[in-house]
Amino acid sequence: MNVTVRGKIRPYRTVTFDAPRNHVRLIEQRLLPHEFKIVTSRTFRETAAAIRDMIVRGAGAIGATAAYGLAQGVQAFRGSDRKKFSRHIETVYTTLKDARPTAVDPVNAMNAIRQAMARGKSVEEKQAIALAAAEEFANEDARHCAEIGRHGAQLIRNGMNVLTHCNAGWLAFVDIGSATAPLYAAQAAGKKFHVFCDETRPRSQGATLTAWELTQQGIAHQIIADNAAGHLMQRGEVDLVIVGSDRTLGRTGEVANKIGTYTKAVMARRHGIPFFVAIPLSTIDWNLRHGRDIPIEERHASEVLGAWGVIQTRSAECDVRHGNRVYVRVANPTSGARNPGFDVTPAELITGIITPAGIFKPTELWKRRRELGFTV
Amino acid sequence: MNVTVRGKIRPYRTVTFDAPRNHVRLIEQRLLPHEFKIVTSRTFRETAAAIRDMIVRGAGAIGATAAYGLAQGVQAFRGSDRKKFSRHIETVYTTLKDARPTAVDPVNAMNAIRQAMARGKSVEEKQAIALAAAEEFANEDARHCAEIGRHGAQLIRNGMNVLTHCNAGWLAFVDIGSATAPLYAAQAAGKKFHVFCDETRPRSQGATLTAWELTQQGIAHQIIADNAAGHLMQRGEVDLVIVGSDRTLGRTGEVANKIGTYTKAVMARRHGIPFFVAIPLSTIDWNLRHGRDIPIEERHASEVLGAWGVIQTRSAECDVRHGNRVYVRVANPTSGARNPGFDVTPAELITGIITPAGIFKPTELWKRRRELGFTV
Repeated sequence: MNVTVRGKIRPYRTVTFDAPRNHVRLIEQRLLPHEFKIVTSRTFRETAAAIRDMIVRGAGAIGATAAYGLAQGVQAFRGSDRKKFSRHIETVYTTLKDARPTAVDPVNAMNAIRQAMARGKSVEEKQAIALAAAEEFANEDARHCAEIGRHGAQLIRNGMNVLTHCNAGWLAFVDIGSATAPLYAAQAAGKKFHVFCDETRPRSQGATLTAWELTQQGIAHQIIADNAAGHLMQRGEVDLVIVGSDRTLGRTGEVANKIGTYTKAVMARRHGIPFFVAIPLSTIDWNLRHGRDIPIEERHASEVLGAWGVIQTRSAECDVRHGNRVYVRVANPTSGARNPGFDVTPAELITGIITPAGIFKPTELWKRRRELGFTV
Repeated sequence: MNVTVRGKIRPYRTVTFDAPRNHVRLIEQRLLPHEFKIVTSRTFRETAAAIRDMIVRGAGAIGATAAYGLAQGVQAFRGSDRKKFSRHIETVYTTLKDARPTAVDPVNAMNAIRQAMARGKSVEEKQAIALAAAEEFANEDARHCAEIGRHGAQLIRNGMNVLTHCNAGWLAFVDIGSATAPLYAAQAAGKKFHVFCDETRPRSQGATLTAWELTQQGIAHQIIADNAAGHLMQRGEVDLVIVGSDRTLGRTGEVANKIGTYTKAVMARRHGIPFFVAIPLSTIDWNLRHGRDIPIEERHASEVLGAWGVIQTRSAECDVRHGNRVYVRVANPTSGARNPGFDVTPAELITGIITPAGIFKPTELWKRRRELGFTV
């Protein structure tokens, strides 16, 4: 997608591979929205560190980064000893996998690369295959998001107000994003609309990342407190809700997503507003039978008790450099917090699931499981 | 209510009057929850400035402050010329009224004092009456809140999890508060329970003021992101919701309160959780016929786009004094915001209205209007 750098609009992907130099290039997401910077990772160990240190985040984006990281490590091998090469691949794989132990995308991505490499005979052949397969993985991620956009854009009409929650944008994927894909596709089709970005406390991904993305793309938007969405719906100011998903149950159509999603779905239903979830097929969990069994991560209290931002006020005692992100404690100093990171929205509240293969009712997923690539 | 100062628990009111010195004493609410400080206002002009500059906020609290401010101004008059005295009273009244032009409480409070003063003959007599009437106004505010507590405490059982939104606490009144009154009364009756404080973005009054109050009173509580309440309700972790109100329509039972209240009411209804609104009778609007006609203040975007807090991190370039509250910009620098300050909850979602005169169904208010003090 587009980023304006020094007044010029340029196309970027969240993660790219510079094959001649064997470098992985990443958008430094920890500096957004206050600074845009591309970082270069010169070795697979640096790439693993970038995943670990959250320079890159989001399911699709870390999958592609791990795929490139594996190819990068494989390329760096010198010699033709296949046994040494195998041990080297194992080291690269483990290093990248351990960078984010609970994530499933890097593992799936690297397994796809290794599977492709098995077709090669010589070290050199395998190296070439790894590079092509990593490139193909990233392209496929972008293609799937583009397909989500193509299907989802039909839902957006001129003059609509679209509400989105958190960031399921192109920063979380290689390009285009999931929940944002219909917006970008509709814009490309010349439609004019307006987006409300839920702030999405406690980590404020809506106010920071989604708002930044929409600004770069020139899409009209306003940030709102999470508290304001219900009121705007009541006053008829929201026409459509699109969110992403961290895990969607193929058997029940239940959707686990960022905390607050469930509340938006209930409010949308009350006011007869269509509520859609945009997902790549890789986030469908075909095994779990009940949404209540999805583990809900309890995150650190400090997220709720304060906020990260850039200093805007100066006092005589305080000469803080602008652009320097700091954490401020907002809450009463001695109070604690509960901080569930996700919630589960039941299928009955979801108008449709937007996938690369089309838009389905959540309860249709199971009977379409074969056409959606589930093999059992 | 209690405040712990240097390890000692002391009782405080939000606003008090030191009659011998003719001083108004206020809790400096702008420093809370990071610092507790009592400020002394030596003249009625200083008292007006305290109202204007938000040292004191909240309907009941600014009403009592204006009442004391009027008495303070009246006391300061020297001489026995009743014409000069009348002109002086007018100046005091106007100065205090203009300190917060849209608020109705200071005006109502001061009119009550002036009405009482009409009974006096000499300047001296009127001065004495003003003092007594201001004291009575503050005591009545505290008494009404105590009555709300007495009725509301019946709703709270041992082991309950009570959710509250924003701050309708004793800081907003002279003492005890409205939405917090049932909590304090239940605690005094020896009940054990736990409170979830909605953070209440964008101004975070739940995370700052309510959490501070509950800490001072030793009531178990946790702050949650506004997004988390729906999830906790879904998981059966909320048993009761109590909120305050800025305006309650006597004709329809609709409740205008801090943005986000309506959403909590919808979620509570979905999960069969009782939803109560605690109000002093002065917030009932007997005239307006439709909740949709309540003007919803659109507040400054900066509230949504950032947060006020105390610096917790230090970097080499940044030597910020701790305890120094700063504003940080959280959101994307070039994005704007919508910021409605209040929303309207329909009567059908409200289990009951807790008033000093008892607990009523919202639609009962109108037929009880005479016993609730409405004269038409």
